Amino acid sequence: MWAELLPVGRSASSGGYRRFAWNSADTECRAWFEEQARNRGLAYELDRNGNQWAWLGDPGAGDAVVTGSHLDSVPDGGAFDGPLGVVSSFAALDELRARGAVPTRPLAIVNFGDEEGARFGVACIGSRLTAGVLSREQAYALRDADGVRLPDAMERAGYDPTALGTDTDRLARIGAFVELHVEQGRYLTEDRPVGVASAIWPHGRWRFDFHGEANHAGTTRIEDRRDPVLTFAETVLAARERARAAGALATFGKIAVEPNGTNAIASLVRGWLDSRAPDEAVLTELVAAVERAARERGERDGVRVELTRESYTPVVDFDGPLRDRLAAVLGKGAAGDVPILPTGAGHDAGILASVIPTAMLFVRNPSGVSHSPAEHAEEADCLAGVAALADVLEDLACQPS
Amino acid sequence: MWAELLPVGRSASSGGYRRFAWNSADTECRAWFEEQARNRGLAYELDRNGNQWAWLGDPGAGDAVVTGSHLDSVPDGGAFDGPLGVVSSFAALDELRARGAVPTRPLAIVNFGDEEGARFGVACIGSRLTAGVLSREQAYALRDADGVRLPDAMERAGYDPTALGTDTDRLARIGAFVELHVEQGRYLTEDRPVGVASAIWPHGRWRFDFHGEANHAGTTRIEDRRDPVLTFAETVLAARERARAAGALATFGKIAVEPNGTNAIASLVRGWLDSRAPDEAVLTELVAAVERAARERGERDGVRVELTRESYTPVVDFDGPLRDRLAAVLGKGAAGDVPILPTGAGHDAGILASVIPTAMLFVRNPSGVSHSPAEHAEEADCLAGVAALADVLEDLACQPS
Repeated sequence: MWAELLPVGRSASSGGYRRFAWNSADTECRAWFEEQARNRGLAYELDRNGNQWAWLGDPGAGDAVVTGSHLDSVPDGGAFDGPLGVVSSFAALDELRARGAVPTRPLAIVNFGDEEGARFGVACIGSRLTAGVLSREQAYALRDADGVRLPDAMERAGYDPTALGTDTDRLARIGAFVELHVEQGRYLTEDRPVGVASAIWPHGRWRFDFHGEANHAGTTRIEDRRDPVLTFAETVLAARERARAAGALATFGKIAVEPNGTNAIASLVRGWLDSRAPDEAVLTELVAAVERAARERGERDGVRVELTRESYTPVVDFDGPLRDRLAAVLGKGAAGDVPILPTGAGHDAGILASVIPTAMLFVRNPSGVSHSPAEHAEEADCLAGVAALADVLEDLACQPS
Repeated sequence: MWAELLPVGRSASSGGYRRFAWNSADTECRAWFEEQARNRGLAYELDRNGNQWAWLGDPGAGDAVVTGSHLDSVPDGGAFDGPLGVVSSFAALDELRARGAVPTRPLAIVNFGDEEGARFGVACIGSRLTAGVLSREQAYALRDADGVRLPDAMERAGYDPTALGTDTDRLARIGAFVELHVEQGRYLTEDRPVGVASAIWPHGRWRFDFHGEANHAGTTRIEDRRDPVLTFAETVLAARERARAAGALATFGKIAVEPNGTNAIASLVRGWLDSRAPDEAVLTELVAAVERAARERGERDGVRVELTRESYTPVVDFDGPLRDRLAAVLGKGAAGDVPILPTGAGHDAGILASVIPTAMLFVRNPSGVSHSPAEHAEEADCLAGVAALADVLEDLACQPS
């Protein structure tokens, strides 16, 4: 099952994945999902927002237990972020059947569309639409880097975008959602291959525009320059220092320069700040401090600084009773207490947590590397993840709750 | 004459010029040059390297006086850098004729191809080929950003690339080359609209590759990061500080980031350093100091720094006797001594200075802005430039030398 999915959308040059919403690699992944569902006799369903579902039992019966994740990737992403959750869901279902466990609640596996937001710049589009956090109008207005509108991209891939929007009826039929995901830091260590999520840090994306003046790099006197690369550089270093001091994270990973010529002083630098912190007050103060540093340096450089908040997600605390139930189920074994840990990454589970009881399981990542071809999880840990998910599903769905 | 050339290759969005070697705007500029030559009864000639010539008198007679510049631009360049020299050459010839001056030496106006190097990354390709500083093989190996080879680009524009190479016979027939150019700093002030060049600063381009590790911006602990954007930022600030201390220039104007995602720590940052200094020892020490700063910070960041010198041009001292003769001719007027100034910019004149007696005239630039749509010279200063060039040409070509 895993072997079939591995080559899809993998770049020969980088070894990373380029599975972006509605591209050909995404379409192949979707065909794989449908095939896995049909092979297991599950009822396959495509919802109004392009999310894929595989049902065991009657979807209309209500109080369903749903598990799953996503199959798309960031540019040159790794093999595990997303797909591990979907593959583990099918494997856990196989394990339940092997155990002879009989579900008393409907069970579904889901593949949410466009979780990474690599194409249209907004993450978790499939789950956001479903939960009503992103409106149909907002989705219709999104364009990719080539100017293709989201509904047109869906149509080109053979999907009907006309019904995009909140899916209240579907949400009403779900009693719990559990997403298994590869851990993305190095917070699970030693003999703890699986953990339970406590919360998602509040996080956001801020675009800094540094407006300088284009000029000749070889002739313009230093005192006549308004070089935005300098202001940007100072801002990058300030962001790191402030984040470290605050116990938070601040990263500039995307940069655009105009005119970007070797012998021209830049007229404009755009830098995108990704920042996350344990709580919202810390995050707000951190971004304000970075902005102050940028403006102070901008004054010296003759560079005007503009700040735009492009996205913001408040803290997500996962459902307490569901989290405790997972921890209790998984803590029964020899390993003792299960680690309960927060994450800085956004997930479909974070979106759904606002509308239905939601939980997450994390599988250990020995290097902490993710969003990179070097992302990795050991096979034994992946199998431990499948066993844990099977235990959780059996507990939730196979006995009177 | 100027009015016809102004709209060619101008971007409606930026107001800047996009006249790159062998593109359609460049072809239009070339047609304009040929038309100007024919309108004046000059013998039009295209040389083996795609440079255009307009001859008054017998090209074969030897000891010719040549003036001119280039018509191509940097991305979103200004109207004056290059074209001012070509337009002023034609205008100066008109002025000579109006004065009734009769040349005793052959006179030519030249448009050198691809001076800015905007398309193939090497500046002054036309004059370098002619002077034998760039070989035919090197030129054939050049590719633009779309992978188009230089000879193919020439062919597509209707030019024959098969004879590219050193043009010794042509150089042997030239006694002096004078290039008029808009000044690119703010070194000409008050009542000094025209100056004479002393030298071109040694200058070069160095590519810094900062190798880090791609990772998730929201989950990777600070202590697990190898973020090359930080090392780059420190290097940018160090370059500015060291350049200021050395009385030199150091600029990072072009940056490339991989994978360049908002929520990914970069795996690679490439930054191109353009650096220039009054002498070669200062330049060498400056670049070495920037490299040390980069490596020191790289050690702290876990980032490997690689340095590649992509181009280097030693100092150019213009021909002393020719420079003094120009200064004497132009110093006769009421304004008194003519300013003699160095420049940090490369020019075709800098290439030719190694093979024939060469001089440059600079026309005042009130803002010092160049390589930008805001580049400007006052009309009165441009006319003073034409008058100065006519004086120089009359002195050099219209009396027994």
